[in-house]
Amino acid sequence: MLAMLASHPHPVPDVEESAVAAEALHACAAHCAACADACLAEDTVAELRACIRRDLDCADICAATARVVARQTAGDTSMFSGLLAAAIEACERCAEECETHAAHHEHCRICAEVCRDCAAACRRLMESIVPPM
Amino acid sequence: MLAMLASHPHPVPDVEESAVAAEALHACAAHCAACADACLAEDTVAELRACIRRDLDCADICAATARVVARQTAGDTSMFSGLLAAAIEACERCAEECETHAAHHEHCRICAEVCRDCAAACRRLMESIVPPM
Amino acid sequence: MLAMLASHPHPVPDVEESAVAAEALHACAAHCAACADACLAEDTVAELRACIRRDLDCADICAATARVVARQTAGDTSMFSGLLAAAIEACERCAEECETHAAHHEHCRICAEVCRDCAAACRRLMESIVPPM
Amino acid sequence: MLAMLASHPHPVPDVEESAVAAEALHACAAHCAACADACLAEDTVAELRACIRRDLDCADICAATARVVARQTAGDTSMFSGLLAAAIEACERCAEECETHAAHHEHCRICAEVCRDCAAACRRLMESIVPPM
Repeated sequence: MLAMLASHPHPVPDVEESAVAAEALHACAAHCAACADACLAEDTVAELRACIRRDLDCADICAATARVVARQTAGDTSMFSGLLAAAIEACERCAEECETHAAHHEHCRICAEVCRDCAAACRRLMESIVPPM
Repeated sequence: MLAMLASHPHPVPDVEESAVAAEALHACAAHCAACADACLAEDTVAELRACIRRDLDCADICAATARVVARQTAGDTSMFSGLLAAAIEACERCAEECETHAAHHEHCRICAEVCRDCAAACRRLMESIVPPM
Repeated sequence: MLAMLASHPHPVPDVEESAVAAEALHACAAHCAACADACLAEDTVAELRACIRRDLDCADICAATARVVARQTAGDTSMFSGLLAAAIEACERCAEECETHAAHHEHCRICAEVCRDCAAACRRLMESIVPPM
Repeated sequence: MLAMLASHPHPVPDVEESAVAAEALHACAAHCAACADACLAEDTVAELRACIRRDLDCADICAATARVVARQTAGDTSMFSGLLAAAIEACERCAEECETHAAHHEHCRICAEVCRDCAAACRRLMESIVPPM
């Protein structure tokens, strides 16, 4: 996404962090939706309800956040810090739940990893927008 | 949405507020996406960039929030208050911008109204989840 | 949605059918996502996998189609007939599956009804775009 | 996405083509949404209306198709060929329009390329599902 975001006529100062976060958010949305589908097909689906719920929430929140983060037109720095915080929370809750199933389900192991990476990328973007005091 | 949400095998305690908020969020997402499209077709599109940006952000955030709010399986009360706060902020920023064009563009007048209604519905849901002390 | 779509600076000729279809598509997306969530919470979730799958597909396809249908800027009549056909197919497959559970699950009964209404609204829009010969 | 889709308890026969298509669709959705944002910020935005329209349509259709394609639970081979065809059409229309601006706008050049790649990946998936006679 960096080549695309850098070709905007007026890129934001933190365009590199934005591109990394947008990619991580899209990847997270894609993997969470697929993990929900894999959980649904498991014999133990009844025990995976909380996992499916968090997968679906995380997929929706990350997909929306990815789009917002990748927009640079008429932006202002305070605009999406609340949304980023919500995405980080969704990623971490999903990762926590997936980690409890990681030993039995490879899709949960992968999903937890992708969620953790996404939370980290969002955190770096937040720090680049609002530097910690 | 109330009939649908109430037919869940284990509805959340605040199912009525959830249904109202989910409907308001879906309506807001639909109207913001359409307002962005109407702004894009105006002769003065170059002056409506900030409005289109906020419309698109609000549409994406509200669509995701609507889905999360309407889910009741394996939920917990703290799960989406950050997301609701982000949706309220998106609605209010979009309404503020649309209101500055409301005298000239009926679509902005309607959109601002729908955004304000959505913010109010989300606020009522937040209060029903975490009662103010 | 009609007031919003009619306030576009250059509304399409079939703006009424578009508004009805956009509303039906948004309602269908909302109800299908909620029906998937209700199915997931049922004791018999293992028997409802196909229903959840179709609910989720229908929700995603209808949400995208709703946005496309509500856009009027720089449109051309042939642009989304393939997408409308895909949405109608998703609605009908979801309705068929939900109908087999309608006697036991009120959410499936409601969902099937909303899907059938949506398919009908999409079909009316298709006919208004490409009149049958 | 291949590691994720291959870890599904019952992967579809064409899981490799599905994974490639899902990735291409997600990338296309991300780039089209960002291209629309970059077009909106150009001085010549009034001449880029058709491009923004097609970008937004393509983004929505590809995002929905990506999710459907990545689901493997309770699938059947005929289920999404109509949707894939609609996604291919959206990609090609968007690419055609973006190509007319590619000499002046790097974001349009990149977007056209990503759309063409996505259409090709979707076509390969279609062929793996329904082999040409």
